[in-house]
Amino acid sequence: MSIAVIAPGRDRSKWIAYFERADPSINVEIWPDIQEPEKVQCALVWKHPIGELLKYPNLKFIACMGAGVDHIIQDPKLPKGVPITKVVDDQLSKDMSIYVIQGILNNQRRFVDHLHARERGEWLNSHRYPEKMNIGILGLGVLGQDVASKLVTLGFDAFGFSQTKKEVIGVSCFWGKDQMAEFLNSINVLVCMLPLVDQTRGFLNKDLFARLNKGTYLINVARGEHLVDEDLIAAIDEGQISGALLDVFHEEPLPKDHPFWSREEIMITPHNASVTDPKSVARQIVDNYHRIETAEPFKFVIDREKGY
Amino acid sequence: MSIAVIAPGRDRSKWIAYFERADPSINVEIWPDIQEPEKVQCALVWKHPIGELLKYPNLKFIACMGAGVDHIIQDPKLPKGVPITKVVDDQLSKDMSIYVIQGILNNQRRFVDHLHARERGEWLNSHRYPEKMNIGILGLGVLGQDVASKLVTLGFDAFGFSQTKKEVIGVSCFWGKDQMAEFLNSINVLVCMLPLVDQTRGFLNKDLFARLNKGTYLINVARGEHLVDEDLIAAIDEGQISGALLDVFHEEPLPKDHPFWSREEIMITPHNASVTDPKSVARQIVDNYHRIETAEPFKFVIDREKGY
Repeated sequence: MSIAVIAPGRDRSKWIAYFERADPSINVEIWPDIQEPEKVQCALVWKHPIGELLKYPNLKFIACMGAGVDHIIQDPKLPKGVPITKVVDDQLSKDMSIYVIQGILNNQRRFVDHLHARERGEWLNSHRYPEKMNIGILGLGVLGQDVASKLVTLGFDAFGFSQTKKEVIGVSCFWGKDQMAEFLNSINVLVCMLPLVDQTRGFLNKDLFARLNKGTYLINVARGEHLVDEDLIAAIDEGQISGALLDVFHEEPLPKDHPFWSREEIMITPHNASVTDPKSVARQIVDNYHRIETAEPFKFVIDREKGY
Repeated sequence: MSIAVIAPGRDRSKWIAYFERADPSINVEIWPDIQEPEKVQCALVWKHPIGELLKYPNLKFIACMGAGVDHIIQDPKLPKGVPITKVVDDQLSKDMSIYVIQGILNNQRRFVDHLHARERGEWLNSHRYPEKMNIGILGLGVLGQDVASKLVTLGFDAFGFSQTKKEVIGVSCFWGKDQMAEFLNSINVLVCMLPLVDQTRGFLNKDLFARLNKGTYLINVARGEHLVDEDLIAAIDEGQISGALLDVFHEEPLPKDHPFWSREEIMITPHNASVTDPKSVARQIVDNYHRIETAEPFKFVIDREKGY
């Protein structure tokens, strides 16, 4: 029996060592050199080739290498009835929250202006009181809840929106379509932490932007597909959106000729808000893998219907 | 009876309105146009002229406009026995903590490199795991404790050093000369939040830097006089200090020809880590002012001997 690591374009060589450390008794095979597909009980995947997972007749679960499972769900040739698990990792949440908080603080305290002034050798004569920031977190999953709570500790007013009712201490929570308007009216920073599913694809579009307070700042750490790129540029031109911090894009690396590069209001980072720790992932996979023998339910299984 | 506002070079015109809002019955006089010095019971000061405070024979307390009272204590002609109060304000702590946290996050996540790459139109190929940061807070007053606690919430290991024993939940606290070495060995970011007194002047010098872990990052939000400027430059040259974020300087604005401007490892901000909110200060002063009549003890009185 074995675990197959299927992650085209990623550095897969180290996975053997990570699993070795987590449990030396486990056999690990690395795609595309899978010797015995019938022995594979777990596939650890990141952007696997469409249909690839049908080649493993004894697959017991599909493990996603990161938090977002959209790249798995999008495969129309996914083996039916096989559970899909995601990564839930403290360090992943921690890093994501740090990234979002950093983006908010830099926006509030105008760090880029300060840096440019400093680079010009100029003492920026600005003793104004920092602007009040009301932060809206779109999507209150594990990551969204973590950042919302931390923002409250730092003294920000935090607002959360989710499809179904969620409660987070200190956070003003809204849910369902009826409460969307009140959520959007309450905030001047919008952080997208949604899962990527059919209903959320292109959710950050001109209709949504028009409902925000003028000058709202946008942060997207979810998926590039949540955002309609041209709508963001138009909203910045109109002053409806004051600027954006984007870590995710339709195509990554972001193509050289993409219009975002020429908009200084848009800060671009190379999809590194939070990076999965392979050691931690390996431990979680091994734990689930042993559940096959004991017939215990797998941990961190996603809802295929919902898509997250 | 009246309050005198003595703050050369600061915009004093608004203070009348702030006190008016806090208590319209109070008379406020603005230096240098003090009509009746004998009626002044409270002097609200920021960098007052030496000896000025001797002109008010009925002074009941001297109120500092900010958190650090060093500019008052330094006056050798200070009226004896008159209590000195400092500002303790939630917003002041909040802003200070935000500034320090922002500096730490930007250092950890290499924000300046990311910004420069983005400005060059370059997708920075860096998916490395963020470096572990152990933050040392030098000085555990109200402000130091606030930032240390918040860093713990964000998942950092926080260490604190104070002259006398202090305890802060989740923070590894050290005190006294004997424990200084252990404190310095534990950290790779040093944040100076000391009061400025004779013993702390020039405390951030080559001897201290030599005792730090190689590559420690320095943040100074206290006073420019804590730092020996040339020692910092030498420590950066040696790689002992990896860089610094400085908000305070011996002379402010920092002179155009100061060597700090030419060191890109040093981020410079114009002493705006936290800016006192005059409305809040006015409320605190008025509260203390009324204590003259009721003979209650003043709030936030500093220890003249200690100097803070």
